[in-house]
Amino acid sequence: MPILNAFYAQSGGVTSVINASACGVIETARKHPDRIGNVYAGRNGIIGALTEELIDTGAEPAEAIAALRSTPAGAFGSCRYKLKSLEENRREYERLIEVFKAHGIGYFFYNGGGDSADTCFKVSQLSQSLGYPLQAIHVPKTIDNDLPLTDCCPGFGSVAKYVAVSTLEASFDVRSMAATSTKVFVLEVMGRHAGWIAAAGGLVADHGIPVVVLFPEIEFDKARFLARVDELVKQHGYCSVVVSEGCHYPDGTFLAEQGTRDAFGHAQLGGAAPVVAQMVKEALGHKFHWAVADYLQRAARHIASATDVKQAYELGQRAVELALEGRNAVMPTIERTSDAPYAYRIGSAPLDAVANVEKPMPRDFISADGWGITDKCRRYLLPLIEGEDYPAYRNGLPVYATLRNVAVPRKLPAFELA
Amino acid sequence: MPILNAFYAQSGGVTSVINASACGVIETARKHPDRIGNVYAGRNGIIGALTEELIDTGAEPAEAIAALRSTPAGAFGSCRYKLKSLEENRREYERLIEVFKAHGIGYFFYNGGGDSADTCFKVSQLSQSLGYPLQAIHVPKTIDNDLPLTDCCPGFGSVAKYVAVSTLEASFDVRSMAATSTKVFVLEVMGRHAGWIAAAGGLVADHGIPVVVLFPEIEFDKARFLARVDELVKQHGYCSVVVSEGCHYPDGTFLAEQGTRDAFGHAQLGGAAPVVAQMVKEALGHKFHWAVADYLQRAARHIASATDVKQAYELGQRAVELALEGRNAVMPTIERTSDAPYAYRIGSAPLDAVANVEKPMPRDFISADGWGITDKCRRYLLPLIEGEDYPAYRNGLPVYATLRNVAVPRKLPAFELA
Repeated sequence: MPILNAFYAQSGGVTSVINASACGVIETARKHPDRIGNVYAGRNGIIGALTEELIDTGAEPAEAIAALRSTPAGAFGSCRYKLKSLEENRREYERLIEVFKAHGIGYFFYNGGGDSADTCFKVSQLSQSLGYPLQAIHVPKTIDNDLPLTDCCPGFGSVAKYVAVSTLEASFDVRSMAATSTKVFVLEVMGRHAGWIAAAGGLVADHGIPVVVLFPEIEFDKARFLARVDELVKQHGYCSVVVSEGCHYPDGTFLAEQGTRDAFGHAQLGGAAPVVAQMVKEALGHKFHWAVADYLQRAARHIASATDVKQAYELGQRAVELALEGRNAVMPTIERTSDAPYAYRIGSAPLDAVANVEKPMPRDFISADGWGITDKCRRYLLPLIEGEDYPAYRNGLPVYATLRNVAVPRKLPAFELA
Repeated sequence: MPILNAFYAQSGGVTSVINASACGVIETARKHPDRIGNVYAGRNGIIGALTEELIDTGAEPAEAIAALRSTPAGAFGSCRYKLKSLEENRREYERLIEVFKAHGIGYFFYNGGGDSADTCFKVSQLSQSLGYPLQAIHVPKTIDNDLPLTDCCPGFGSVAKYVAVSTLEASFDVRSMAATSTKVFVLEVMGRHAGWIAAAGGLVADHGIPVVVLFPEIEFDKARFLARVDELVKQHGYCSVVVSEGCHYPDGTFLAEQGTRDAFGHAQLGGAAPVVAQMVKEALGHKFHWAVADYLQRAARHIASATDVKQAYELGQRAVELALEGRNAVMPTIERTSDAPYAYRIGSAPLDAVANVEKPMPRDFISADGWGITDKCRRYLLPLIEGEDYPAYRNGLPVYATLRNVAVPRKLPAFELA
């Protein structure tokens, strides 16, 4: 067998565990020097392949690569860049082949979500379409948890844990303050198309917290919502609201777009949380507080789920094994075999069945009244937030790795992105 | 010596470690059954004393009290309620004495910030002013870190740690995304009058992060700010901004008030973060993300500073010891004796020198250009965020205590709050 180099890139919005997958890919590749030469990482994702900005991960000592396991975000840089079809932009595919040829690359590992699976699938067809032998394996990653054919996606469990912990903590706070001050706390979380992340906020109901979850899947009904908040505050003295950024009215208008204007008339300055909070204030008169977690939720490696970190690593590891087994155009997956005790095995799925397919949250994960989660959802979520995987700390802050990211010398002329 | 009961109450905005002080008070009181009978907690702070809503902490097993050490927010409820002067509202003071008499209370422990120190001082004068023998000890607590005569205030160190960790993590995220997407991340933090909390965001500069801190102490200059962001993005490809909610223009207008209007013309729907982010977008065209941490920062017991937890407990403990030593109208304090290695001793300060005095952040804690912190500030902050004190977890979430909060039977007629 010839020794070939591997290309690895991170794509789309980063997560607190995508580097754990990178760690799994690189450490596993290093165990097979008879088959895999070096792992070249794309600087800023697939763009690095197109512009021949390759990072020599071989220049990093084993400890630096090991430290990726507990470092959030994308160590090599990510990008939002979707390859067009071969028919639409043949030039890009030909450039990829030039770069891969110049650097002896025979393995392609792409770490991303739905759009990236599409890119990876297109690259996996290069052998067939342009005669360049390449094995392309997709490593799943998305906090949105919306990839099909896998029980869950690395990145999601840690966001879910962050949201559940934060909602619990802030709810304890508002409960303390409710007698004379704040009675309603609103937390805005990510998830424009599906309520997977918001659902995690619903877990605090098990801890006696009155909580209203606003899902993108449930059309927002202001009157019903206000009646529910009123009911909970009358009953408990306070309540928490977890609102998905994707929550919208029946006509599709997002709550975040509702009428917020700055002095210049620009829309959408604020998020959904302040809109919801203001609504409660106007209708019910309650003092409120609101928070928007934004990047904090997906970068919060300090409170990552141990399950999530482990799976992120294992899927990176398995991606390399699949390549060594001669596979192409596949993605390793999580196949759950039991909820409690939680058990799963690593499977694989063909990329053409993954690319451009979004897995919605099942309606039966949302309670009949639309304000919370069902037992079925709870059984799904709990194993994914299980366990803590703390980074090391120095001087009060986590020790997160910043790699040297040494450039591989260029061999080709420059390439302009379209 | 007679055995007297103690009253303990939580006041003002709660923190992630105020219950650690409660734990220190109650556990220490329990060690002196020859002097202290029961500890009665005020339900919702001082209001519980006025309305005779007392909680029997004696009904809680030792494990429940111990669990307070790792539980955020106020286990007995807090309140925002400031006693007027004796001249203005003699009725309230007479009621307090009635309640204290009825329940054999001779010790008064009040756990709060500046306003609460004022209330505690007024109560400490009851012996002199109305002839009721009582020892009142203030237990400091405020995330604002603005009490005088103590090196720091319990609650602050944990918020500082949360802000520093969150800024570091989100900065890693935006650094990953900057090539094709988000270039500026803005985090809004608490601190209306002083920049102690915002300063903690400045700590990430030590980790190579380009960060701009917007302090309440430095009048906001839009042109200078935008030039600074532009410079950092050109140099590093991205930057983070930590903005205090108290950041304001030279005329005193808060950034958060700048022109944000909802469809009904209501002001101040959003916070400072979206205003700053929008400013950057308009002037420099950079894609941005913003977060508002709000309650999450002060409730985040999961990432509390071990130093802070320890000091919160010790100050509660010392408050009881001061009472047993016969002291009145004092507050235990932290006296720092060395920055590195960090060392401190517990002292005490007279309440009349604490009440209604705000400790500002020294100007020489802020860098000359106004965008960051100095070495002096760094030396001050680092020990306060040192160490992790993780709560236990079950089913993926922290095990936080909810006490039974058994009511002490009433002995007096009802009392209407003014």
